[in-house]
Amino acid sequence: MAMIGGGRDAFIGAIHRIAINMDGQVDIVAGALSVNPEIATASGHDIFLNEERIYTDYKTMLEKEAAMPQDKRIDFVSIVTPNFVHFDPAMMALEKGFHVAIEKPMTFTLDEAKKLKSKVEQTGLTLLLTHTYTGYPMVKQARQMIKSGMFGKIRKVYVEYPQGWLSTFLEGSNNKQAAWRTDPKRSGIAGAMGDIGTHAFNMAEYVTGAKVTKLCADLNIMVEGRLLDDDGAAFLKFDNGASGVLMASQIAAGEENCIKIRVYGEKGGLEWKQEDANTLLVRWLDKPAEIYRAGTGYVNSYASHNARTPAGHPEGYLEAFANLYRNFVLTVRAKTNGEKPKDEWLDFPGPESGVRGMAFIENVVASGKSDKKWTDFIV
Amino acid sequence: MAMIGGGRDAFIGAIHRIAINMDGQVDIVAGALSVNPEIATASGHDIFLNEERIYTDYKTMLEKEAAMPQDKRIDFVSIVTPNFVHFDPAMMALEKGFHVAIEKPMTFTLDEAKKLKSKVEQTGLTLLLTHTYTGYPMVKQARQMIKSGMFGKIRKVYVEYPQGWLSTFLEGSNNKQAAWRTDPKRSGIAGAMGDIGTHAFNMAEYVTGAKVTKLCADLNIMVEGRLLDDDGAAFLKFDNGASGVLMASQIAAGEENCIKIRVYGEKGGLEWKQEDANTLLVRWLDKPAEIYRAGTGYVNSYASHNARTPAGHPEGYLEAFANLYRNFVLTVRAKTNGEKPKDEWLDFPGPESGVRGMAFIENVVASGKSDKKWTDFIV
Amino acid sequence: MAMIGGGRDAFIGAIHRIAINMDGQVDIVAGALSVNPEIATASGHDIFLNEERIYTDYKTMLEKEAAMPQDKRIDFVSIVTPNFVHFDPAMMALEKGFHVAIEKPMTFTLDEAKKLKSKVEQTGLTLLLTHTYTGYPMVKQARQMIKSGMFGKIRKVYVEYPQGWLSTFLEGSNNKQAAWRTDPKRSGIAGAMGDIGTHAFNMAEYVTGAKVTKLCADLNIMVEGRLLDDDGAAFLKFDNGASGVLMASQIAAGEENCIKIRVYGEKGGLEWKQEDANTLLVRWLDKPAEIYRAGTGYVNSYASHNARTPAGHPEGYLEAFANLYRNFVLTVRAKTNGEKPKDEWLDFPGPESGVRGMAFIENVVASGKSDKKWTDFIV
Amino acid sequence: MAMIGGGRDAFIGAIHRIAINMDGQVDIVAGALSVNPEIATASGHDIFLNEERIYTDYKTMLEKEAAMPQDKRIDFVSIVTPNFVHFDPAMMALEKGFHVAIEKPMTFTLDEAKKLKSKVEQTGLTLLLTHTYTGYPMVKQARQMIKSGMFGKIRKVYVEYPQGWLSTFLEGSNNKQAAWRTDPKRSGIAGAMGDIGTHAFNMAEYVTGAKVTKLCADLNIMVEGRLLDDDGAAFLKFDNGASGVLMASQIAAGEENCIKIRVYGEKGGLEWKQEDANTLLVRWLDKPAEIYRAGTGYVNSYASHNARTPAGHPEGYLEAFANLYRNFVLTVRAKTNGEKPKDEWLDFPGPESGVRGMAFIENVVASGKSDKKWTDFIV
Repeated sequence: MAMIGGGRDAFIGAIHRIAINMDGQVDIVAGALSVNPEIATASGHDIFLNEERIYTDYKTMLEKEAAMPQDKRIDFVSIVTPNFVHFDPAMMALEKGFHVAIEKPMTFTLDEAKKLKSKVEQTGLTLLLTHTYTGYPMVKQARQMIKSGMFGKIRKVYVEYPQGWLSTFLEGSNNKQAAWRTDPKRSGIAGAMGDIGTHAFNMAEYVTGAKVTKLCADLNIMVEGRLLDDDGAAFLKFDNGASGVLMASQIAAGEENCIKIRVYGEKGGLEWKQEDANTLLVRWLDKPAEIYRAGTGYVNSYASHNARTPAGHPEGYLEAFANLYRNFVLTVRAKTNGEKPKDEWLDFPGPESGVRGMAFIENVVASGKSDKKWTDFIV
Repeated sequence: MAMIGGGRDAFIGAIHRIAINMDGQVDIVAGALSVNPEIATASGHDIFLNEERIYTDYKTMLEKEAAMPQDKRIDFVSIVTPNFVHFDPAMMALEKGFHVAIEKPMTFTLDEAKKLKSKVEQTGLTLLLTHTYTGYPMVKQARQMIKSGMFGKIRKVYVEYPQGWLSTFLEGSNNKQAAWRTDPKRSGIAGAMGDIGTHAFNMAEYVTGAKVTKLCADLNIMVEGRLLDDDGAAFLKFDNGASGVLMASQIAAGEENCIKIRVYGEKGGLEWKQEDANTLLVRWLDKPAEIYRAGTGYVNSYASHNARTPAGHPEGYLEAFANLYRNFVLTVRAKTNGEKPKDEWLDFPGPESGVRGMAFIENVVASGKSDKKWTDFIV
Repeated sequence: MAMIGGGRDAFIGAIHRIAINMDGQVDIVAGALSVNPEIATASGHDIFLNEERIYTDYKTMLEKEAAMPQDKRIDFVSIVTPNFVHFDPAMMALEKGFHVAIEKPMTFTLDEAKKLKSKVEQTGLTLLLTHTYTGYPMVKQARQMIKSGMFGKIRKVYVEYPQGWLSTFLEGSNNKQAAWRTDPKRSGIAGAMGDIGTHAFNMAEYVTGAKVTKLCADLNIMVEGRLLDDDGAAFLKFDNGASGVLMASQIAAGEENCIKIRVYGEKGGLEWKQEDANTLLVRWLDKPAEIYRAGTGYVNSYASHNARTPAGHPEGYLEAFANLYRNFVLTVRAKTNGEKPKDEWLDFPGPESGVRGMAFIENVVASGKSDKKWTDFIV
Repeated sequence: MAMIGGGRDAFIGAIHRIAINMDGQVDIVAGALSVNPEIATASGHDIFLNEERIYTDYKTMLEKEAAMPQDKRIDFVSIVTPNFVHFDPAMMALEKGFHVAIEKPMTFTLDEAKKLKSKVEQTGLTLLLTHTYTGYPMVKQARQMIKSGMFGKIRKVYVEYPQGWLSTFLEGSNNKQAAWRTDPKRSGIAGAMGDIGTHAFNMAEYVTGAKVTKLCADLNIMVEGRLLDDDGAAFLKFDNGASGVLMASQIAAGEENCIKIRVYGEKGGLEWKQEDANTLLVRWLDKPAEIYRAGTGYVNSYASHNARTPAGHPEGYLEAFANLYRNFVLTVRAKTNGEKPKDEWLDFPGPESGVRGMAFIENVVASGKSDKKWTDFIV
């Protein structure tokens, strides 16, 4: 496979590579790692690319790789550039016949997202959107438990993603990560809501299996001089009658990265949080709460498929990330071989999640600006 | 002192008595514990009242006690009846010259609350409103730390109170607690928001020292047949520029009673929750979080005044409740003796909290019905 | 009732009084609170004793109270003096016909403990030994669950009690609590093992229902100049074939008071710790662990009898302490009335626990000095 | 590199491969993955080995690889066979000039361990012993904090490793992992103490920087029919005057894999456990405890070198494992290039840890059989 973006000066590219390497099923053989030729070359050497497959320009790379014989050329690309450089390389890769993995949010606008989804459907190729957190085994356990109906009708969802790293005007100092994420030209119309609110939204829809139908948002810019929201919350209404509260903040000083979801049904509910990722807390109306643990013998097939070690060996963010790639690769390989992928393999975020994520961004920003309480969730 | 309400068939009265007895500073000598004569008598015997001071009617009791010589008659009454029987006995007690302790919410309507507050001011007597949770030592520690400015300007408040006990239509079975709390005639215009939302609201204003200026609420009735909200959330705006999210639910199946608050300022923040009541978690932007513990040598004078044991001996809900009474009694006794109560003693909820609590109920219900996003917080 | 010891300058006496007062069932009417007349008087005034029932000498008090008419005189005494002043007042109180509550360890020596036990049996009176920690509802839940056999044969016990408050030579400064506890003349032959090791030992035998038959101890004095052990551990063998490890330290710097027990049987086990006292963690070989919570509807009759509030209202150390007195008083009252006390009432520590506690002290100190690995547990 | 053992039917081999692959710095190009030719071949195909480098016999592999030109042949081998097949392949690999990574315990006997250590010293090659748990960033943070003296003299160590998976006679059913671990012929003279006690011992010496000088052990076989200890504990004395308690059990029903260490010095101490691996709890005598977190800006260079993501992205067992390989590879590469490895790179367990681990096994078993309390720790 080949990577677009993710050179030495980037953050998420290195994470993708660890996730790709972990299971020893994929080789990274090409890369357009940076538009800066020096960085591109040095970054390529870092990861042992052959000189001739180090590119500074994804277009050239896609052209050249597409021209190679099938057994030599790449199978898929991973796009790990800032948001405004997602759509074009993804479209071109699909057109050239490559499968695509892509950082979230999928595109810069909702319109692009819909076009990309159509292209995927039209080509029959596979697209992975790296909403990492749904890759955790106990998140998968949660989704299946709710799906089974064991909690009765779902009534309430609390989902939150508090961070503190943008508590100061970091974009004013020399912080590349802060700079592009707070810049409307590179990040899009949303700040915190785009960067982490989308993860919370995706988590809520994934775990409950329900769809948001309307929302009411309060978006804030708390740090002076900032151009995009760095804090916000939204009330949610779901198509199954449940209501929810979504909270996302990047000015929650001292918080790290603890995305957390709580869901309540008629008979009980569950709670998962990244800080204790191998645990799923299951509550009941009238009996003791239960602690489900990853890697045990009693979890369902989705949870056990996505764990690599027995219970008690903590697996974390990188394994969750690797699960996305592993399922994507298992699916692509099965399809390539004309086999039917297992349901557990197919359970990774794709174009539909990408479109809904972009719709969330557009709707939550519209609601944030509106004087009306409720905004319909329009896709 | 004497108690109004709180007979054998009640819940909160017994809690008040434990809180009153704990420190051995107050004798319960009279009571109008029930309007049912049999229950009143039996309940009076349970707590060793003299036969002649067991009443079935608070009016008679207040008349008779007021007629006794000063060294024999009661000093104060505790009113622990359902919400719709708060205002009248409180007014009468004040008029007869007795101090008053009263369960929250203070009255049935905001209008009553304002009248009661005026009466307190006019009489110079002392009124305690039992917002229990602000009686915890680490909640007091939190308030003082924020007041000191050590976290910089406060930006964000999350306060939540999830319960699950009303997940079923309990008022349809023979549950007295559920019955009056879900009945608009006895509880007032709000259900969950009146019962526990007011606690969350009071906690947010107490800990931050800021006042809510507007809010946007989503109130829900999730259990079929119920007459009042059993779930809700509100966005808050504070007079110091902070924003907040308040969540209160009684259909969060499996949740017990874990009121929790998180506050974030420019430099750090803090977190407290009832389930781990002796701990205050203090977070910082750029150094390790700290675990402040009740009963230690390093906590402030407000926290240490409100603890009875050294660190590591967990104190809980009943001690927090007893702290309210202890401070109320210390204050009353000091005033009676013509002494100036210490600041630590004066730190208990009174008529101002009661008025703001009733205003919260009226405003949050109004916002819940409104199509407009924001409702000004009117007192 | 009357109190012996527990004046203004003491610690544990005030705790006993809160425990006694909490449930409003007992009046403290007399006291020999200090041998220092000034302190005795001031302390008596603090707790509203009548002048004529403030004593400076427990012998006089017991004589005078015994001479009063039955409906005026005290029912029982609480002995809250340092260890070396336990036996004499307890014997005299029993001889005068008073029930006795007594701080642990029960006596100064094992021999005294056996004599006191005989006296209790001979008089038919009731003795309470305040091993507080077995008063917690979830400790009672634990004992009954193990007794039911649901975990199969018990195999392993870990019990620990780490404190840090004696990490410095506190007895060298003006600390009364440290001074007597580290003084062989007032505390006895053991330091940490007597003060907190006995609690851990009592907890292990109480929860498992098994008896220690031999042990192997490593006792240490870690702070220079100290006269008694401030740290230690012991391997235990129980009469049911289980083995155990007991750890008690007062130099575990930064630790507060977190006594904790873990028990493992063939099919599962459980864990309880004071820092999270309302929770009992129940583990299973092949299914999710369960979180049992105090105050819920599903706990057993022993746990629910010993809770005052519904689930989610944390009860702590003072309530556990009050449970001991409450059960003692319920038992004494039933016996006095010629009624059979309920099993749940009888479940408080008495002379047998006192004898075994003193035997633990003598055996653990003997083992600590021995070169042989195992010392038989001799009573 | 090449792997010896670790075929399809093994457990730990797959873990090693994930650890090796994660950072994309090493290619697995050869393997003697099983002595069963079918399994060897299938396992080789699983990991994409070239047909000619799939071996069924490590001797042939080492011969053939050693005969290849330097730029083609392997650099190092990983030995992931049961304990009784560690020494021979390790010695041969070293003799052929290959660096060696080896599962713990290093050998079958102490004598072998000493010989292997000598061989490493004599050849100048590098040996990694995979004591995984010291690869966690917060364990490294702990070691450096203690080394700095900030806690004063270390006094007490509690280290524990409770597991429950051998609570039944698993070796009687068809469980390969249980079978060899409980078989003296393949595992050695110790069961639980060899399998997990060694990890606890290594953790205690690593974190404190002190050496055990004598011990007193209680070893038990709790499951009928088992041939080796499945439970045990030991008192430890360290060369710096500290004492300790080590607990290791495989019959702690319901426990997973939560190795935990607590260390106390004169001024404070620390606590780390695998279940919350990204946190180091630091306690102080007279100020709030602190929560140190992996990936933050304030941790030391050892902790930050061994983390791959910013704070809040949990890293777990596989990353800790990968840290061992990463440091081993950085060291080997530096030495190969004639450069001086950084101190942070050299911080991985090697032959000295292996020798002490085997000495622990021999000494703890000897003590377990002895009637004397203390056994000198002889290497």
